[in-house]
Amino acid sequence: MQNTELDFTEIDKIITNALREDIGTGDITTNALINENDSCKAMILAKDDAVIAGLPIANRVFSIFDDKICFTIKVNDGEIVQRNQTVAEIIGNARTILTCERLALNFLQRLSGIATYTHRFLKEVQKYNVKILDTRKTVPGLRLLDKYAVKMGGGTNHRFGLFDGVLIKENHIKCVGDVVTAIEKAKKENMDNFKVEVEVSTLNEVGDALRSGADIIMLDNMSVEEMSEAVNIVGGKAKLEASGCVNLDSVESIAKTGVDYISIGSLTHSPPSVDISLYLV
Amino acid sequence: MQNTELDFTEIDKIITNALREDIGTGDITTNALINENDSCKAMILAKDDAVIAGLPIANRVFSIFDDKICFTIKVNDGEIVQRNQTVAEIIGNARTILTCERLALNFLQRLSGIATYTHRFLKEVQKYNVKILDTRKTVPGLRLLDKYAVKMGGGTNHRFGLFDGVLIKENHIKCVGDVVTAIEKAKKENMDNFKVEVEVSTLNEVGDALRSGADIIMLDNMSVEEMSEAVNIVGGKAKLEASGCVNLDSVESIAKTGVDYISIGSLTHSPPSVDISLYLV
Amino acid sequence: MQNTELDFTEIDKIITNALREDIGTGDITTNALINENDSCKAMILAKDDAVIAGLPIANRVFSIFDDKICFTIKVNDGEIVQRNQTVAEIIGNARTILTCERLALNFLQRLSGIATYTHRFLKEVQKYNVKILDTRKTVPGLRLLDKYAVKMGGGTNHRFGLFDGVLIKENHIKCVGDVVTAIEKAKKENMDNFKVEVEVSTLNEVGDALRSGADIIMLDNMSVEEMSEAVNIVGGKAKLEASGCVNLDSVESIAKTGVDYISIGSLTHSPPSVDISLYLV
Amino acid sequence: MQNTELDFTEIDKIITNALREDIGTGDITTNALINENDSCKAMILAKDDAVIAGLPIANRVFSIFDDKICFTIKVNDGEIVQRNQTVAEIIGNARTILTCERLALNFLQRLSGIATYTHRFLKEVQKYNVKILDTRKTVPGLRLLDKYAVKMGGGTNHRFGLFDGVLIKENHIKCVGDVVTAIEKAKKENMDNFKVEVEVSTLNEVGDALRSGADIIMLDNMSVEEMSEAVNIVGGKAKLEASGCVNLDSVESIAKTGVDYISIGSLTHSPPSVDISLYLV
Amino acid sequence: MQNTELDFTEIDKIITNALREDIGTGDITTNALINENDSCKAMILAKDDAVIAGLPIANRVFSIFDDKICFTIKVNDGEIVQRNQTVAEIIGNARTILTCERLALNFLQRLSGIATYTHRFLKEVQKYNVKILDTRKTVPGLRLLDKYAVKMGGGTNHRFGLFDGVLIKENHIKCVGDVVTAIEKAKKENMDNFKVEVEVSTLNEVGDALRSGADIIMLDNMSVEEMSEAVNIVGGKAKLEASGCVNLDSVESIAKTGVDYISIGSLTHSPPSVDISLYLV
Amino acid sequence: MQNTELDFTEIDKIITNALREDIGTGDITTNALINENDSCKAMILAKDDAVIAGLPIANRVFSIFDDKICFTIKVNDGEIVQRNQTVAEIIGNARTILTCERLALNFLQRLSGIATYTHRFLKEVQKYNVKILDTRKTVPGLRLLDKYAVKMGGGTNHRFGLFDGVLIKENHIKCVGDVVTAIEKAKKENMDNFKVEVEVSTLNEVGDALRSGADIIMLDNMSVEEMSEAVNIVGGKAKLEASGCVNLDSVESIAKTGVDYISIGSLTHSPPSVDISLYLV
Repeated sequence: MQNTELDFTEIDKIITNALREDIGTGDITTNALINENDSCKAMILAKDDAVIAGLPIANRVFSIFDDKICFTIKVNDGEIVQRNQTVAEIIGNARTILTCERLALNFLQRLSGIATYTHRFLKEVQKYNVKILDTRKTVPGLRLLDKYAVKMGGGTNHRFGLFDGVLIKENHIKCVGDVVTAIEKAKKENMDNFKVEVEVSTLNEVGDALRSGADIIMLDNMSVEEMSEAVNIVGGKAKLEASGCVNLDSVESIAKTGVDYISIGSLTHSPPSVDISLYLV
Repeated sequence: MQNTELDFTEIDKIITNALREDIGTGDITTNALINENDSCKAMILAKDDAVIAGLPIANRVFSIFDDKICFTIKVNDGEIVQRNQTVAEIIGNARTILTCERLALNFLQRLSGIATYTHRFLKEVQKYNVKILDTRKTVPGLRLLDKYAVKMGGGTNHRFGLFDGVLIKENHIKCVGDVVTAIEKAKKENMDNFKVEVEVSTLNEVGDALRSGADIIMLDNMSVEEMSEAVNIVGGKAKLEASGCVNLDSVESIAKTGVDYISIGSLTHSPPSVDISLYLV
Repeated sequence: MQNTELDFTEIDKIITNALREDIGTGDITTNALINENDSCKAMILAKDDAVIAGLPIANRVFSIFDDKICFTIKVNDGEIVQRNQTVAEIIGNARTILTCERLALNFLQRLSGIATYTHRFLKEVQKYNVKILDTRKTVPGLRLLDKYAVKMGGGTNHRFGLFDGVLIKENHIKCVGDVVTAIEKAKKENMDNFKVEVEVSTLNEVGDALRSGADIIMLDNMSVEEMSEAVNIVGGKAKLEASGCVNLDSVESIAKTGVDYISIGSLTHSPPSVDISLYLV
Repeated sequence: MQNTELDFTEIDKIITNALREDIGTGDITTNALINENDSCKAMILAKDDAVIAGLPIANRVFSIFDDKICFTIKVNDGEIVQRNQTVAEIIGNARTILTCERLALNFLQRLSGIATYTHRFLKEVQKYNVKILDTRKTVPGLRLLDKYAVKMGGGTNHRFGLFDGVLIKENHIKCVGDVVTAIEKAKKENMDNFKVEVEVSTLNEVGDALRSGADIIMLDNMSVEEMSEAVNIVGGKAKLEASGCVNLDSVESIAKTGVDYISIGSLTHSPPSVDISLYLV
Repeated sequence: MQNTELDFTEIDKIITNALREDIGTGDITTNALINENDSCKAMILAKDDAVIAGLPIANRVFSIFDDKICFTIKVNDGEIVQRNQTVAEIIGNARTILTCERLALNFLQRLSGIATYTHRFLKEVQKYNVKILDTRKTVPGLRLLDKYAVKMGGGTNHRFGLFDGVLIKENHIKCVGDVVTAIEKAKKENMDNFKVEVEVSTLNEVGDALRSGADIIMLDNMSVEEMSEAVNIVGGKAKLEASGCVNLDSVESIAKTGVDYISIGSLTHSPPSVDISLYLV
Repeated sequence: MQNTELDFTEIDKIITNALREDIGTGDITTNALINENDSCKAMILAKDDAVIAGLPIANRVFSIFDDKICFTIKVNDGEIVQRNQTVAEIIGNARTILTCERLALNFLQRLSGIATYTHRFLKEVQKYNVKILDTRKTVPGLRLLDKYAVKMGGGTNHRFGLFDGVLIKENHIKCVGDVVTAIEKAKKENMDNFKVEVEVSTLNEVGDALRSGADIIMLDNMSVEEMSEAVNIVGGKAKLEASGCVNLDSVESIAKTGVDYISIGSLTHSPPSVDISLYLV
């Protein structure tokens, strides 16, 4: 499991499931064309400039299928690579390489896509003391991988699920009545070992949240001016997180307001895929 | 299983796994704020114009978690919806609605994203007798759903995996030597119940493929001019599939060449998410 | 899943697994003696005074095996029952009742044992403003149930695992060097959405922990005098948790020191079982 | 599987499940404090005199999580250890050791608890030719481990479930009518390859059972005098098992009656945990 | 689970797995030809005289796939049917019926094959007081079903696996040295709650086994004369089981010797399939 | 997975499941008789002339149970062996060998049975240019193994399930109306990447099928004369498959008609088991 960044107990299940999804009763093309014992060599190349992520997972795809494959990682996850740079080399059974190619690339292209896209946001705000956060808007079943890729791109992980962080959202407040009541209820339960974060949409609510002892206040879809005012109101007595419709054009102006965190759903719900290919040599 | 378009035996496993991923040991915010027996009503709204897809899956998210929830689908998957149109209504336990909201939206936003993006390609080529195909560049573990969404957007599904279609790719040809040998080997194996598709990158190879009896020829990364020439060479004696770097700007000119299929990886590897929200009322 | 206190998705797996463990290829005694369609009625009786816990689980044991069984719960989990009080009534297939009896009682006896034992600690400290906490010393695989039973007995749940709370223990401190460094490291990581708890064994460390910003300080195996002094030192600026060798004789004197929490491993690692029986009528 | 005493195919599933229960999305304390590649050494010490049981399981906990860990077992399961005696030594990755510590100890403390408690009963009856039996009152899902621990403590395993032994209990007799009919029915079924055991509560029933050909007669909650009389009545023509409310004070007087077996539910439903700790060195 | 003859918890897993094996990503023929909402009616007919077995399983195949199907069983498992007799009627979704047909028939044809073949042996020995037993020579993974079919054909089940019966085979004796030592060892272990069966191949061994207290003696590949002599030697003091190369021609002469049981591997390893068909009407 | 003929990811699950089915809570005979560390040597012998199949699976049975076992395969799957020929040798733990013997033989006897039976058909038709095909009439859950054994016997695999081949059967035609409409519908769907096979029962339908563009025509239960006529009608413009009631007596006359394929259900639904034994030496 996870004494490293990656929990391979869980990831191996994802890979095995995905191999089965793709291979089913057999790769009929490869098995018809390639002899059982042929071997060959292949390179994996980035076809775009990118922050690479997912090479240990690509490695596992091949080695779960065939434990004799030799997969050499040429760059570390999180490193920036240039167009046409070789990121891994594979030597081994030719059927294995051809059969596993697509799944390995599917992982690499998505995870490098997330890392690269996260990195572009990071570059926009590098002058500011702000962290770029991910959200729970991940692909169902792949949250651990999506969040890993955000980290490889320089981002910071928000909570992993509903179980490891208190975050009072607008719909909770509607149910409960108001921000103050919601925060009080959240604080009264159990042995207060969680900090309390609350989503607000007006400056009045910022004040209410602060007075009620919120540890983190999420400013939802506020204008840059409102966010600046929120920073003033709070005066460092709580953390502030900007959220909603953040893009590469707007992120720097948001950072400039002095918020502590900017959370960005598109990091994981709409990251453009990075083009990565496998060539036989 | 699948006597309808959707195989819920398989999808229920995906949903259960994803609910567990998100909820883990419990939704600590909702459980602290909302009483166990409170009920409420919510609407799911499209926040963009879109082709909707995934409502039956969103429905299952809630009803797997709580079989007393009442989820009413207001539009069919595959229908075009306007910005702010209500696509579903939910009545039931308030905790259930708040806890399941994010996962249901994650499915809806991705699948509607794929359907909407596919639909935009379809509109570009509607004057031509060409089918838009998906590829195996899907999210690992979610291929059935991704391909379902392509269909909802008007696209046509290519093979589901390595097991249900012969497709000789460039790397196969490199291993085997040349297009002709590859096709012959593919045809010799077993009881020829599969058609044979082959990927080529030159017009010479188109001729070779045709003479060797390929049923479908995939033109990989060819210029529009080369594709037109390929259409002439083949003269209807095989099907032609255009592939590689197809985007919304280029798709019509490709269709104009007269190819039978255009396959587009970005339908499933980089579809922009559709904004969809859940509001309590 | 858990829109109630109990997550039956997870519990049903535990029950199904345990039914299979007990029944295997069949209850050869019951199947030989009892006709397939005989029905009967049974009562479940507490044979000791107890706080009852686990009746919904006992119910599921029978109904997972046979969905036509009628199981009527007579008291709510968490209620105090007298010796010989009926806690549930079962009507249905006789084979079902005889085959499932033992497993249902195994759950009831353990969970009521935990609830009853917890309740005895609660009674000792009822004059004090202190919470009785459980620990991670639960039976492997049954933590959710063990912690549920603690709650039914009036206790408060500490973190559910290593993922949902920061708790720096003595062995962490040994690795890192000292309390101050450990707390600083814990605070620097990620988006500080967790409170930081630290285990200390001397009053000096209490001071260090307080100055480093610990939110909760666990006093490990301290004497009552030391704990009182720790309460003075901290003066309400952090929460204090007493831990180590707490028993029914010592718990009140610990509560008297003014600590906020007392955590007790034996609640779940050595709870005496409650005697509960099933009688046919 | 089980060509040894322990079936690790099954146990590995229990351990993996329990690791996931405890670690979930990650050990946030250890991962924040300890570097990924730090290594250290630890000792596991018994803090009470005890019969140790579970060291191979503790070993698996660490090695399933991290196959590079070096776990050295210092005493065999079933051996008696003194307070503060080292029972195992661990060298390897520091994160692994800190993350797995609690689960390994949870297994060791429970299983050694059962073995130690069983051993205390054995010592009370060592002068008599009687076997101490366990029951089906085990923790749901952990029966194989609980019964293994009983054996390590010198006890003898009764049947593993409802499938591998005929035991007619009081509730069966109530359904069927009387002891004689019950035994006859049990004997008539199938190819009589099982011995027939029957639970009785009066001396009359002892006689009935004997005459009907019971192989083993369980004396339920009888007084010592009744048991002695039952031994006389049976005169070696069947085996006798004493059952019900056996404790350390009463067990010797029961053994003295001459019964063949004494079965004790508390061996597995209420064994006091043994205190065992892990220290970094 | 199994409060009836059939344990559907386990069987449903087998069916679901087999449906997935056959259907995979979809029944491409049926889905292309038949409209999603068409319904139809079908009959299942025996095409041979047979003892029918497996109708409740065939029913589950359809209803697991589609819970709206209406499957009417016309004869009970274990009944004798004539050529062309209707054994079940199905009304419901046409896709469901066409997609599930083959799997349902695969179960029915094999299980009815076993029941019919068993029944033929029973008829040969009906004048004798002997039971026809099955063996562990079943199809891997389907033992419960195979043994159920034997019972439907009038046969008697031998042990279900290695866990619920002591059977000392020739290879055990080779390891241990001789029959006497083997039986003694088997009797010494644990709480003798199992009867002891031993396989012998000479009359000398029959005597040894008897004197050592074997409860059941299996005569392996003996001639009819030897078996008769064995019956004399044993004189009712143990049960005798004939085994090895039993067929329809030889079974009566074996029964005539007076053995208690005849076990026949071919009941489950080589039963001729019964022809059963599904017709749309 | 399957870069060889056999997909061991899937097969290991089948074996593990079958080991558990047979061993359950333990091999009580072997564990009572054989010491934990005894080792021995065994030979596996064919007791009939046969085409051997399944040795790699038998190997896995032992090595999944005990990874220290040494299993030496003496002949390749697909080879013809003589009565009493040694096909494998096993050295290792005696308990392992005795406990796993039956399951390993169960696989070997069935798979060699299928291969041997298939081979007998092949010999009958060796003068003709015809392929012997299997069907979907396999044992539920073991299709991959059954079809592998057919291949080892010289047969050719038909489609693996409903997902990888279009085969319009009589019941489909009844639903749709006629052969022509059925073929048209099958051809219209999706991207025609599958060939279309259709089952017909009259010569008229052969003509219809040919004109509608069927790629393969299955002649169901036709007389040899009709089949010869069908071959004339089709004149090589489609492939022809003979099906229905094919046995060792009739197969040559069918082959003589000039059909391309003969499919035989009994290859997998009623193959006579081959006698194979394991001897300790």
